[in-house]
Amino acid sequence: MTTHHLAIIGGDGVGPEVTAQALKVLDAAEQRFGFSTTRTEYDLGGRRYLASGEVLPDSVMAELDEADAILLGAVGTPEVPPGVLERGLLLKLRFAFDQFVNLRPVKLLPGVPTPIAGLTPDRCDMVIVRENTEGMYVGAGGSLFHGTGAEVATQESLNTRHGVERVIRDAFARAQNRRNHLTLVHKTNVLNFAGDLWMRTFTEVGEADFPDVERDYVHVDAMCLYMVTTPERFDVVVTDNLFGDIVTDLGAAVQGGLGLAASGNLNPTGAHPSMFEPVHGSAPDIAGKGWANPVAAVLSLSMALDHLDHADAARAVEDAAAEVLTTMTAMGGPDMGGSTDELGDRIAAIVAG
Amino acid sequence: MTTHHLAIIGGDGVGPEVTAQALKVLDAAEQRFGFSTTRTEYDLGGRRYLASGEVLPDSVMAELDEADAILLGAVGTPEVPPGVLERGLLLKLRFAFDQFVNLRPVKLLPGVPTPIAGLTPDRCDMVIVRENTEGMYVGAGGSLFHGTGAEVATQESLNTRHGVERVIRDAFARAQNRRNHLTLVHKTNVLNFAGDLWMRTFTEVGEADFPDVERDYVHVDAMCLYMVTTPERFDVVVTDNLFGDIVTDLGAAVQGGLGLAASGNLNPTGAHPSMFEPVHGSAPDIAGKGWANPVAAVLSLSMALDHLDHADAARAVEDAAAEVLTTMTAMGGPDMGGSTDELGDRIAAIVAG
Ligand SMILES: CC(C)[C@H](C(=O)O)[C@@H](O)C(=O)O
Ligand SMILES: CC(C)[C@H](C(=O)O)[C@@H](O)C(=O)O
Repeated sequence: MTTHHLAIIGGDGVGPEVTAQALKVLDAAEQRFGFSTTRTEYDLGGRRYLASGEVLPDSVMAELDEADAILLGAVGTPEVPPGVLERGLLLKLRFAFDQFVNLRPVKLLPGVPTPIAGLTPDRCDMVIVRENTEGMYVGAGGSLFHGTGAEVATQESLNTRHGVERVIRDAFARAQNRRNHLTLVHKTNVLNFAGDLWMRTFTEVGEADFPDVERDYVHVDAMCLYMVTTPERFDVVVTDNLFGDIVTDLGAAVQGGLGLAASGNLNPTGAHPSMFEPVHGSAPDIAGKGWANPVAAVLSLSMALDHLDHADAARAVEDAAAEVLTTMTAMGGPDMGGSTDELGDRIAAIVAG
Repeated sequence: MTTHHLAIIGGDGVGPEVTAQALKVLDAAEQRFGFSTTRTEYDLGGRRYLASGEVLPDSVMAELDEADAILLGAVGTPEVPPGVLERGLLLKLRFAFDQFVNLRPVKLLPGVPTPIAGLTPDRCDMVIVRENTEGMYVGAGGSLFHGTGAEVATQESLNTRHGVERVIRDAFARAQNRRNHLTLVHKTNVLNFAGDLWMRTFTEVGEADFPDVERDYVHVDAMCLYMVTTPERFDVVVTDNLFGDIVTDLGAAVQGGLGLAASGNLNPTGAHPSMFEPVHGSAPDIAGKGWANPVAAVLSLSMALDHLDHADAARAVEDAAAEVLTTMTAMGGPDMGGSTDELGDRIAAIVAG
């Protein structure tokens, strides 16, 4: 029997609650599909930082690196200054483990209420491939005359042919497995240097190696408009780190909210583990109330299973989540039609078969 | 009688068509409210560039600088490479004339179909104040090993205390004239240097000089989500150049489409002219068909009138546009319930009184 070693980082706020549901569903999937996992839980996030000053010790990094996959809940507490955990934990893992593809499906599931009038599932089924290791996220920049009237602050987007090409290739390959349509989202009319590199790479790779995939280009501002008016324009979308961050939150809204949005931070080479996390944050205001929607965490587990080559289990978990969704009366909060825990039980029961 | 000198840049595609409607409405406003304008039309845009290689000659810049305000339609033709007109004309005017406030109202008018389910006008009435002279728009950056596998392309966001503070002050003052609520939109958890400058300036200026204005902060990704789920959260929003570009296109979608979205590029000091333009582009695919919605251009004229201290005329033009909107059966295209020209006539007739 195949055994996978998983690192589990529940994190802060609702993170541990939704992660617990994903693990329950995983138990059911293991039983049904005949594989097993060993799991090590890591106490990381705001609580640990506030107690010890530690964000992510090197020894923990080394252990995480041994995992076959990482499941993350959410990190962040209001007491920790912005950036500390984002930069020291989440982005550090994405960068250090070279998880260069941040995969974020935007798919309206049947029965889910969307804020977009008249939108139907057949018109909203795309996959956004977000570059995850460079761009504006590298933290490059500085400030001169800090705190004075003469202050200048710079923030630099770093883009390499290496980094841009690998994520574009990944996106083209995904398009071949879907509807053969890939859209590049950028802002080439303003970001002259970065946009030029992205556009050239997109065109060259497409022409040379994926001539069967139809290419489209959309400015990031127009993209936000199209996502709410004509999401059916998109099949696979590839974009840089910052634009990907923005359009996937909008995508989460369109498909029914952050309570449903899953993501995978993938290292497609397998040199380091990939990491799976709901797009939502730690939502400290509702922590401990049983109001968090576990579906985003469960769908992230489904992506992890797919990555670990359990396509059948991944599909079963996704289908079970979709089925329970149709019985939910709200996508989060006190009126979901069941607590976080009860919804997790229901999904697990369906997976168990 | 007051006389204002206006520079008119119709531009390309539907630009001249919608600008003609705004001028018709301006005629009516002059008659009714007793002021006059002189107008000089400038042939600028893709057509001129393709014919002569000229984008914006210095002599034209000098003339434009003498105007009391500039009305711009839209520039851009498919034959011109991306960036040439944007950088050489639109951004050049914004930067050279130090139009540091890009004012973009997001207001759902009664009777206008919005893609957001159940959204009502009382829940969507905000003003977005976009920084318009720095940030990612300065064109700073470079590329090394261009065109090779080793290429690195950088793109730099430049932010000054000077530039950030003046636009934040402008936004606070606008909030005082509205509902006393100002939201800063940025990405402070990732953009460590730029975000820090924006956040410090926002807090300091607010505490010191606008203590009566309630301050809120929202990450740009969350902003995109809130704009489609809970736009009632926002009164005045201030943000940087790139984020402002993105969220205002989304705002245009929410309020019914680009056919209705107006903008003013303001130099509040009066040292150089301000410029007013619909947010939409030149839409070459529908040029000459009479399918362009003139309302965005007319509402931009209303902003110009306000800027020229004709508040009554501005209001009358806005009201007339809003009235005609309720009779329109589509917000653009062949089914609007009248051609571009007919709709312009109707608005002008209402303004004439
Ligand atoms: C928390 C933050 C650093 C992160 C990001 O910006 O990538 C989040 O918004 C996300 O989308 O995963
Ligand atoms: C045409 C382009 C340069 C411009 C911008 O990015 O500012 C446009 O999108 C806008 O919003 O006015």
